[in-house]
Amino acid sequence: MSRQPLRALGLSTGKKARLHRILYNAGPANGTALFLPYDQGLEHGPRDFFANPAASDPRYIVRLAVEGGFNAIAIQIGLAEKFYWDFAGEVPLILKLNGKTEIPSDASAVSPLNAGVEEAVRLGADAVGYTLYVGTPAQEQDFAQYRAVRREAERWGMPLIVWAYPRGSAIAGKGGKSSFYAVDYAARTASELGADMVKVNFPDPTRRTGVPAPYDGEHSAQDAVNAVVRSANRSMLLVSGGERTGDEAMLEKARQSMEAGATGLIFGRNVWQREHAESLRFVGRLREILAKYPV
Amino acid sequence: MSRQPLRALGLSTGKKARLHRILYNAGPANGTALFLPYDQGLEHGPRDFFANPAASDPRYIVRLAVEGGFNAIAIQIGLAEKFYWDFAGEVPLILKLNGKTEIPSDASAVSPLNAGVEEAVRLGADAVGYTLYVGTPAQEQDFAQYRAVRREAERWGMPLIVWAYPRGSAIAGKGGKSSFYAVDYAARTASELGADMVKVNFPDPTRRTGVPAPYDGEHSAQDAVNAVVRSANRSMLLVSGGERTGDEAMLEKARQSMEAGATGLIFGRNVWQREHAESLRFVGRLREILAKYPV
Amino acid sequence: MSRQPLRALGLSTGKKARLHRILYNAGPANGTALFLPYDQGLEHGPRDFFANPAASDPRYIVRLAVEGGFNAIAIQIGLAEKFYWDFAGEVPLILKLNGKTEIPSDASAVSPLNAGVEEAVRLGADAVGYTLYVGTPAQEQDFAQYRAVRREAERWGMPLIVWAYPRGSAIAGKGGKSSFYAVDYAARTASELGADMVKVNFPDPTRRTGVPAPYDGEHSAQDAVNAVVRSANRSMLLVSGGERTGDEAMLEKARQSMEAGATGLIFGRNVWQREHAESLRFVGRLREILAKYPV
Amino acid sequence: MSRQPLRALGLSTGKKARLHRILYNAGPANGTALFLPYDQGLEHGPRDFFANPAASDPRYIVRLAVEGGFNAIAIQIGLAEKFYWDFAGEVPLILKLNGKTEIPSDASAVSPLNAGVEEAVRLGADAVGYTLYVGTPAQEQDFAQYRAVRREAERWGMPLIVWAYPRGSAIAGKGGKSSFYAVDYAARTASELGADMVKVNFPDPTRRTGVPAPYDGEHSAQDAVNAVVRSANRSMLLVSGGERTGDEAMLEKARQSMEAGATGLIFGRNVWQREHAESLRFVGRLREILAKYPV
Amino acid sequence: MSRQPLRALGLSTGKKARLHRILYNAGPANGTALFLPYDQGLEHGPRDFFANPAASDPRYIVRLAVEGGFNAIAIQIGLAEKFYWDFAGEVPLILKLNGKTEIPSDASAVSPLNAGVEEAVRLGADAVGYTLYVGTPAQEQDFAQYRAVRREAERWGMPLIVWAYPRGSAIAGKGGKSSFYAVDYAARTASELGADMVKVNFPDPTRRTGVPAPYDGEHSAQDAVNAVVRSANRSMLLVSGGERTGDEAMLEKARQSMEAGATGLIFGRNVWQREHAESLRFVGRLREILAKYPV
Repeated sequence: MSRQPLRALGLSTGKKARLHRILYNAGPANGTALFLPYDQGLEHGPRDFFANPAASDPRYIVRLAVEGGFNAIAIQIGLAEKFYWDFAGEVPLILKLNGKTEIPSDASAVSPLNAGVEEAVRLGADAVGYTLYVGTPAQEQDFAQYRAVRREAERWGMPLIVWAYPRGSAIAGKGGKSSFYAVDYAARTASELGADMVKVNFPDPTRRTGVPAPYDGEHSAQDAVNAVVRSANRSMLLVSGGERTGDEAMLEKARQSMEAGATGLIFGRNVWQREHAESLRFVGRLREILAKYPV
Repeated sequence: MSRQPLRALGLSTGKKARLHRILYNAGPANGTALFLPYDQGLEHGPRDFFANPAASDPRYIVRLAVEGGFNAIAIQIGLAEKFYWDFAGEVPLILKLNGKTEIPSDASAVSPLNAGVEEAVRLGADAVGYTLYVGTPAQEQDFAQYRAVRREAERWGMPLIVWAYPRGSAIAGKGGKSSFYAVDYAARTASELGADMVKVNFPDPTRRTGVPAPYDGEHSAQDAVNAVVRSANRSMLLVSGGERTGDEAMLEKARQSMEAGATGLIFGRNVWQREHAESLRFVGRLREILAKYPV
Repeated sequence: MSRQPLRALGLSTGKKARLHRILYNAGPANGTALFLPYDQGLEHGPRDFFANPAASDPRYIVRLAVEGGFNAIAIQIGLAEKFYWDFAGEVPLILKLNGKTEIPSDASAVSPLNAGVEEAVRLGADAVGYTLYVGTPAQEQDFAQYRAVRREAERWGMPLIVWAYPRGSAIAGKGGKSSFYAVDYAARTASELGADMVKVNFPDPTRRTGVPAPYDGEHSAQDAVNAVVRSANRSMLLVSGGERTGDEAMLEKARQSMEAGATGLIFGRNVWQREHAESLRFVGRLREILAKYPV
Repeated sequence: MSRQPLRALGLSTGKKARLHRILYNAGPANGTALFLPYDQGLEHGPRDFFANPAASDPRYIVRLAVEGGFNAIAIQIGLAEKFYWDFAGEVPLILKLNGKTEIPSDASAVSPLNAGVEEAVRLGADAVGYTLYVGTPAQEQDFAQYRAVRREAERWGMPLIVWAYPRGSAIAGKGGKSSFYAVDYAARTASELGADMVKVNFPDPTRRTGVPAPYDGEHSAQDAVNAVVRSANRSMLLVSGGERTGDEAMLEKARQSMEAGATGLIFGRNVWQREHAESLRFVGRLREILAKYPV
Repeated sequence: MSRQPLRALGLSTGKKARLHRILYNAGPANGTALFLPYDQGLEHGPRDFFANPAASDPRYIVRLAVEGGFNAIAIQIGLAEKFYWDFAGEVPLILKLNGKTEIPSDASAVSPLNAGVEEAVRLGADAVGYTLYVGTPAQEQDFAQYRAVRREAERWGMPLIVWAYPRGSAIAGKGGKSSFYAVDYAARTASELGADMVKVNFPDPTRRTGVPAPYDGEHSAQDAVNAVVRSANRSMLLVSGGERTGDEAMLEKARQSMEAGATGLIFGRNVWQREHAESLRFVGRLREILAKYPV
């Protein structure tokens, strides 16, 4: 499938301007995107930094986003307030609005708001991020919180990127959070609720226990990610790297995602859980893939 | 029974103007209505699109609403924001305000708000839709949420269409969600609470286990739907197609509904879960029925 | 020049939906417009109705708008509240938001607000009208009042039609209110300030006393109206009939306006200051002109 | 004098991010700026477009800003709403917040607000512009209006560019609006009141009638513009082209301004009051000058 | 590690001004800090005062803060209202905004707000304090309450000191509240969420039952506190004394903390749970340590 240009995505002036800056004035500048997420310190705690202690320093990471030619960096409000000024405008900012620690149970997960769209405006951000726990038993609370964010984003012309994560006790019984079923449903939910971009994990069509009939058959990984792009439709799809795993497997998923029509990749731990020069080499390989999919 | 004209329904100026546009400037333009609902991607997930993958694309569906001569299309905010512009004004818009995924249990179902009446105004919609889960144990929360919507709809002269769905653990023990008892009660509830239109499933008078005595007798399908129209009274009745079933059975229900005095039909999956030309042929047969019931 | 289609005018979803209803679901339904303004009772007083006393009755006029196949009727809040319900939805409503009597001097004219955009929404209107007195010494007050209306119109997706009238003591010294200079400047001002449609009087290039050099030369009427359409650009131009004058002269101006790329005509006194059947005959001739300029 | 880098200007994060985008991601991308102002249609009327009728079309001008490699385009809200979408993000937007027609007297000039900072945010603008009539007898009203804009700009991290124009009856008696005295005072006033950038006309040290003693001596043009940059200090200075005059004289002023430490140039009529290819050639010469002053 | 100066911490003007007063105009006046917390009367009840009954009198303690040359005193609103006036300005005030009794269970602890940032402004405070219970199952509620405080602190330029306390049933199963894992995660959470200073207990790397793998190894106390300073990064670290224990052990922890790059110490019970002269002697020994770490 081929991706649609920005002008075909039903965007308001402000959202189009900001997405143009992200997609054409930064990174590969060809309409694809490579995002650097850095909220793992909150979501998982500092344990994620033991593999490369330098990565504990937010300044190191923001600089890496500049040096690596990322399209944007996604961080929480505390780091944005104290670390973005140094490089303001050198790499676009995605203010991640909600987030939580992993310490309590997430059977009924909701990710609490830590900042608002107005703060993203104040800091000169070009997008905001929201984690929606698709399928959580606390769905009503999550949708209500999300709705307020969506309206503010619409009001301010601020692109809204939804981290669409299947989560909670009900998902566990229906194939789990990385099943093709769950990822596909999550992408569609974000699209129905107005995401401008949707971040998903790469779908795993082999996880079939408990999934609805249409998903309980043989589907290739490529077919699965194709379907997810289709479900997201005018909400641009971002595929996340997740935990660090083997490079070749990650790069193959990246290729399949772009082939499917995804807009880009959002890779954190796979990038910065290694020494600096190695990080840049890996980023270089991701950028080589993106370079083949201009739009 | 014969339907009443708009001027006899106790409507404010704005509601009358908008309903006139839906009922007389679109579709059969004879006071009847054929609506295309398209929020199944959220309510059921993308599994509903496997029968006709083209239907996964909201643009395909909005265009189908135009081509098929529907009176309106009902969609969630995300799709309205990104897909309605292309055809704005070519087919009236019903903004569906609430909706949820089917992943968590709906024993105590409430459908959370994803948008407000003000957004419907902003998008040029001619009506809003709200799913009321009649009989849910979470009735207080549902009614409270509904009440705010009704007040806003009244304030802005925006017609309010209630998806009146019997649902929740208590309904299961009293004949189930499609019993004559449950559908009739749902229609009346919507009418008592101020719906301008009520969407119900076709009542099934054979489901009698656990229903109150008056419903626990022999009632023909026609008698049942007659009663439901009467219960809705000045709230115009829309009968929904629900899951795709045999065409002739669907068309017979459509005829019986219109004969009973319903204002129209709301058919989604029965329309778009088939190939494009077939969809239009089926729509043509529905329109033939509506043509016989001008008001 | 050829007019641009709605999709090329930089409109939001709501404005596009409402303008589509006005331009394609009413009147000639070919993208042109014939509007019936009826606020002369406030602006000039009942003296305007002596020529045809029936026209004093707002119901007579709203019905005339329906019978004559107008694209919309423009009235003040009082008449909208009491007379539009009868025909709600049968002809689109333009709520004229400001207006004044002609009794005091208009050397420093400002037209006070009598209603707001929210009331237009409530009544199901498809556009609002605002009189901007371009060049008035009270410019600051007028612009401030206008700004609030424009923002509300933008917020609600309500098309904003600006009656762009050169007025005030300074205009008198620069060619007067119907000079090519003044009308051209008025059209441009409305466009710079965000009008979706601009209503102007037909420009008179022979009025040259005191006008700036570029206007102080030989310009044909056609050249002048061409320039005015260009100055309005994506703000669609409506040419008004003004006082009743000879039919053939009026029709010639109508033809020249449409030839220049205007979107339509707004004729009040020329229509209803005559007996009913005559009114309809004159309207028929206007519609014949519009039929030649589909877009 | 040498200009200071952005990090030395006392900017908040949002202002720094947005100014970085203007100064380093657009135009010469070396910290200098070439801005295209296009509000003359409102300020002077369409008479300014007779020299090159194509320039009457805002789309032509926005495209020219892209083609010419400008750092930003400055327009009023109406044009921003309807014309910026097409090129959103391809050239930064400066929303000019106030403006007026030249029709009434400007002896006590105040430029009324036509839009607010929030609208600039919504449209994805990277700066706002405000015309401050330094020295106007209506100073209190102007300062009050300006103060509200400044606070909003601070709140949203939006750079504020002040068009610092000496104006009004009192200025006329003290050397006139282009005297070294008046321009120098205007630059300082904008700086004292919080402008992030100040737009002035090139100071004319030969206009000495009625100016205070220190200005009533022999000052070279270079000395004058040096002083003005010093008066503006951390408010970056933009020198405007004003009315179209001879190219070589304009280019010399541009060189002197940059030599003085100005940040850039803002040229409208000198650019677009000529045929397209000629416009680009002239812009090329301006860019050659800017290329020599990186910071 | 060496601490960074105030100018390198990404602070707004107001926060920098107030922190400069705390760090350079009070206490050792060398950029380090010694804070006196005095909210134990609320948190633990008067039982904490039995060791030195004089300490029950807030006036005694505020005077002690002055005499002992503390950088600030942290108290609840009631004591601030009644006791700070006497010494206002003689020692900086930290208004502790939330707090609770220890009587109910704190399995799902949240510390309720007792005052707001505006009251801190009114009282002339130079910082506010907030207790965040990192890992509590009531995380959503705590984050929401904290978020409002953070925004107010940002708005008013008021430094925000977070008491980052691991707490709640989930923490108990993962090494407990003083484990290296829990303290490190708490420091990072405060940093991600925008604390200007973070108060933690000294981490205990020997508490390893149930902690994630990276923490389940041999770590020296110095290594642990080094890591915690790194996790806090631009949020200055304060190490608290906690319960009174042996002086030499406390002083050793103080030395290790400062060696790690902490900004200072916050010692309450260890100071005032002894006779007055002894208190001052102990404070003197703490100040000797701080004197060795100017920045």
